[in-house]
Parts: sequence; structure tokens; C-alpha cells
Amino acid sequence: MAAAGAGASGPAAETAAATFRRVYGTLKAELLKDPSFDFNDDAIQWLESMLDYNVLGGKLNRGLAVVESYKILKAASPTEPSEEELFLACILGWGIEWLQAYFLVLDDIMDNSQTRRGKPCWFRLPKVGLIAINDGLVLRSQISRIFRRYFRGKSYYVDLLDLFNEVEFQTTSGQLLDQITTNEGRKDLNKYNVHVYRRIVEYKTAYYSFYLPVACALLLFGESLDNYAQVKHILVEMGVYFQSQDDYLDCFGEPEIIGKIGSDIEDFKCSWLFVQALERADEKQKGVLFENYGKSDPACVAKVKDLYNELHLQRVFSEYERESYEKLISAIEAQPNEAVRAVLKSFLHKIYKRSK
Amino acid sequence: MAAAGAGASGPAAETAAATFRRVYGTLKAELLKDPSFDFNDDAIQWLESMLDYNVLGGKLNRGLAVVESYKILKAASPTEPSEEELFLACILGWGIEWLQAYFLVLDDIMDNSQTRRGKPCWFRLPKVGLIAINDGLVLRSQISRIFRRYFRGKSYYVDLLDLFNEVEFQTTSGQLLDQITTNEGRKDLNKYNVHVYRRIVEYKTAYYSFYLPVACALLLFGESLDNYAQVKHILVEMGVYFQSQDDYLDCFGEPEIIGKIGSDIEDFKCSWLFVQALERADEKQKGVLFENYGKSDPACVAKVKDLYNELHLQRVFSEYERESYEKLISAIEAQPNEAVRAVLKSFLHKIYKRSK
Repeated sequence: MAAAGAGASGPAAETAAATFRRVYGTLKAELLKDPSFDFNDDAIQWLESMLDYNVLGGKLNRGLAVVESYKILKAASPTEPSEEELFLACILGWGIEWLQAYFLVLDDIMDNSQTRRGKPCWFRLPKVGLIAINDGLVLRSQISRIFRRYFRGKSYYVDLLDLFNEVEFQTTSGQLLDQITTNEGRKDLNKYNVHVYRRIVEYKTAYYSFYLPVACALLLFGESLDNYAQVKHILVEMGVYFQSQDDYLDCFGEPEIIGKIGSDIEDFKCSWLFVQALERADEKQKGVLFENYGKSDPACVAKVKDLYNELHLQRVFSEYERESYEKLISAIEAQPNEAVRAVLKSFLHKIYKRSK
Repeated sequence: MAAAGAGASGPAAETAAATFRRVYGTLKAELLKDPSFDFNDDAIQWLESMLDYNVLGGKLNRGLAVVESYKILKAASPTEPSEEELFLACILGWGIEWLQAYFLVLDDIMDNSQTRRGKPCWFRLPKVGLIAINDGLVLRSQISRIFRRYFRGKSYYVDLLDLFNEVEFQTTSGQLLDQITTNEGRKDLNKYNVHVYRRIVEYKTAYYSFYLPVACALLLFGESLDNYAQVKHILVEMGVYFQSQDDYLDCFGEPEIIGKIGSDIEDFKCSWLFVQALERADEKQKGVLFENYGKSDPACVAKVKDLYNELHLQRVFSEYERESYEKLISAIEAQPNEAVRAVLKSFLHKIYKRSK
């Protein structure tokens, strides 16, 4: 799944990040001494290294976005957020990071990936192998343990469980669509199109990366999510735009800046660029695309990139980017609540015209 | 994980099974047209064949046990169970069958298994492969969808979610213990012992196979599970006894009757027989065990079986079986509620001295 959605920077954010990390230590310690399962020393060691390897190591943007969104919501109210409230916001944030770790550990096995966050994928470690599958399930079940401990008595507990269940359903459904489309796409590239692309991205990435952090903050703030269908829609649109950027940068970004060498063309990805090219290509150009897409031979990759240039996809993307921004801004401005507008704008400004 | 816990037979049970199966059709149809994810035709086809392949095909004993337990609980009350109540009992039963399918699809990949329920494992099908991992996650998230649809308004909804989350935590924790013990066990068979065996079996099998069906029936009956710690304990003990039988039959059962050729010795399993042998073996016998366990050579397997006979493990098992039965019966008799006693006895009598 995609890289992180919302980021934090500067010295104040560093402090928030430090607090956030401290909470991880608390949660880990509690899980390792969970009274309902008397883990032996081997199991405790395993769990600890599994958690540090997979839950830490990312940019923690989704998790931090819960804390940040909560602070913005709270800024409009007469009282400062209490220590307790900020602590709970961190826990919800970690819930998302745990969820992400669960998806990534298992995705990497499915995709036969080599590295993740600059290290070998967890299942690539010789001592781990396919035990990683169960580790993924352990990560999933730990979210429930954590939430039960901290939120069981809260009025929004059941909504919180429903929210994570719903997002899990959307993400795995999106992943299903992606997996079978790519399977079929190998045989028939016409299976890739703008409509399919959008649905995969919306479900596989946007819900858990963009909607979920804000939804967590709203729940903690005492809101009913039923009243935020529009906010959900805006965040999902932002997630789709974010993933399109990701796909664009995979081909046209600077490897030194994005921190990796793109390989979507080689990997046969149902990428924003590919579906846009397909929309615009004539029969001859389609032939070039179909012949060269999904091959690791650099000459083939170059032919695909040449075609992307021939079809002016850089300009197409700039226009898409501008249009997306305008649509998002006017949807945000139409929101009645000022604090909610501020949350949405803070998300948008983090990602608009990003180069990494 | 182990074969089924509680079975049903006879013409009346056949009717219950037929009703139960009809409910599967309803649930499947609803999942395929879930309004919150507009699946395309390819995805609908995939989901349908995935569900039929993995959720059906078992003996459905755990699921049917919910319906049966609920009927027994209800028999003591003045009113007959309503159609609606029986329907909801079926849905809870299918929740367990879905949970089991989720575990089995993923376990088979971890264990590199070939067959399940007389067919190739799902991931062995050429069109499936490692997409099976995501299918496992889809199965898990469908449980939440189903429960949300039918139980969202019920007073016990949150307890139901907590129950499934707890059992998932226990099962994956047991699986973790099993995986790392077997890993270590390959290097050092002394890692296998009676204590480790018990904990693996308790967590990996007993909770979801024995406790969960009764807990579902109790929730539907309006009970708080907090008042049933003793019942939980008894069912977990029954589950441990059941798994010990399974291990015993793997070696000493009739392949024509148990429906498979046992391979626990070849597969290096932390089996009841192995840990009992280890308890009783002298140094020389331990040497024989360590040298021959976990090898597919029939001569090695025969040496292990000879040693099991030398140590009179068939007699040891008979005694264990008798003792377990007596302990269970007296714990059951100590239960204050007659209907609950009847539920527990019905479970026990299905498994006592079983030969398959």
C-alpha cells in the first residue's frame, strides 16, 4: 500500500512525535504481559522483536495525524486538550499504525517483496519465513486488545470497533480487486482502466490512510460519524489524489528525493499513468504499451516512458493536480464547521504539489 | 487446527443441518451485493468460489453446535425458540465457521499443506496462489460485516465483538507459541513438554472450537459471559481432551475410520503422544526418540511407534481418558443451572471414547 498520507515537521512536531513514541513503549509493555495469555520467554522475545520491526520504522504519519487532527478540533473549543485526551489520541494513532503493519506484513508476502522501509521484509528474515503470516494476525488481534483496555467503557467504543472493522473490510476488498485485476491484467491489459484504478485506490489506500485518522479524532472528540459523510468523501478524494501523485512520482520523481527507484512499469502496476496513457493512446500506441509494459528490460521501460512523454502525461498530471486541488478546496470551504475545515486543509496542504 | 469438536447425527439433526445450510446461502448473497463495496463481476465470481471452497466443505460441527446449544438452553424455558432466534443462532454459527475458514486458509499456507477436507488447499489452486492470504483477511472482515448487519441493535452486540476478538487473540497467540516452539523444537526436542503442549492446545484449538459455540449461544440467550467463567474452564478442558484424542488417533486410530493417514511423527508435531513419551522415557529411549522423530523414513516412524508401545502409551491414554471424563463430569455436575449442565454433557458425550 501507499506511503504515508499526512506528515509533521518542525520542532513542535518533533515533540509530538516523541510523545507518540513513548506511548508505543507503554502499549508494547502491556501486550507482552497480557494477563490473558501467559507468554513464555521465547514468545515474549519474538513478539517484542516482531513489533519493533514492523510497527516502528515507518514515518508514523497516519498515527500522528490522529493527534494533530484532534488538537485542531480541540483548538476551537474553550478547554485545552487534557493529558488523558492526548494520550488516548496517541493510542488511536497507534491503532492505525498497528493496522498498517498488519496489512504490510501480509502484503509483502503476497507481492513477494524484498524490502520495506529500507530493511528486508519481515518474512525475508531466515528465522521468520511464513510464521510472518500468523504475526500479521497477531498484529490485528492486538488492536482489539489495546482498544478493549482503553476504550471499553467509553460511549464511542462500539463505534470505534465498527470503524476499524469497516476500514478493514474496505482495504481488504480493495486489495482483492487489485489482486484479481492484476492477475487478469497480465493476460489482458484492457482490464486496467480509469474506473478500475479509482476503485482500487479508493478502497485499498484512501480509507485507512486519510479517512481513518480523522474519523478517530472525531470519535474521540465526541462526534457521531453519521454526521460526517461529506468529510469522509473529501478525505477519500484526497487519498485518491495522493495515490495518483505517488504513481506520478514513481516515474517522474527524483529518486534521491522520493527515496526509492520507481518500478511500477516493470511491476505491471495498475498505475495512474498507465490508465491515463490507455485513455489517450491510439491503436498503434496501445500496441507499444501492451508490448512493453510489465517487463524488466530497460529498453522496454524506456519505450513506455517515451510514450508517456509523447502523450504529455506530465502536463495531464499538472492539470489533474490543479483541478483536484480546486475541487477539494471548494468542498472544504462548503463545510459548516471551522475546526473541521482546518483539519481538512491541514491534510491538503501537506500533500498538494509534493515532490516526495 | 484440529478437526471438529461436536457433531450432530440422525434425521432430526439432518433437518437442523439443512436449515443451517440455507442460512449460508442468504449470508453469501448479502455479502456479494454489499452496498458499501460495488464489486465488479470478476470480484463477485472470485468471492463466491472462495466462500464455497473454504467456508463450506467442513463438517460444520462448530457452527451447528451453536444452534444445538441454544435449543438446549431454550428447552428449559417456557417458550419455544422463535424462527428469528433460530435464524440468529445459525448466523452466529456461521460466524464461527467463517472464523475457522479464515484460520485454515492461512494455516495451510504457513504449514505448506497439500490438502484440506479432501481437496487441494485453496492456495494450491493455480489461479489462487498467495492471493489466498488476502482471501483469509476478507473472510475475517466478512464476519464483522455479517454481525453488524444482524446484531448492531442488540444489547449484546459489543459483547459479541469482544468475544470474537478475544478468541481470535487466543487462537493466534496459541498458533504463535506453536510455530516458534516447533521452530525451536527442531533444534532441541526438549522444548516440547507436557506444559507447552497444554498451552498450545488450549489456546490454538480449545477456545474457538469448544468455548466459542457455547459462548455464542449464551449471548443470544441473554446471558452475561462474566457469569460463566466455570463453564469456560470446563469447555477449554474438554477441548484439550479432544485434541489429545486427535493426537492419539493420528497414531493409533484406524485410517479408514478417521479418514486420513496420520503423519504427526513425520511432521515433527508437538503431539500428546510425544510429550507423554518424553515424560516416561529413560536416557536411552530419549535417544531413540530424538533420532527418529520428524523423519519421513518409514523405518524411523516405526521405531517411534515401537517406543510408544514399549512405554504403554495406549494404556496411558485410556487412563488419561477415564480421568478426564471423571473430572469433567464432576465439574459439570457442580454447575447450578440444569440447562447449562445439559449443554456441557451433550458436548462431552459426543467426544468421549470417540474413534473418529
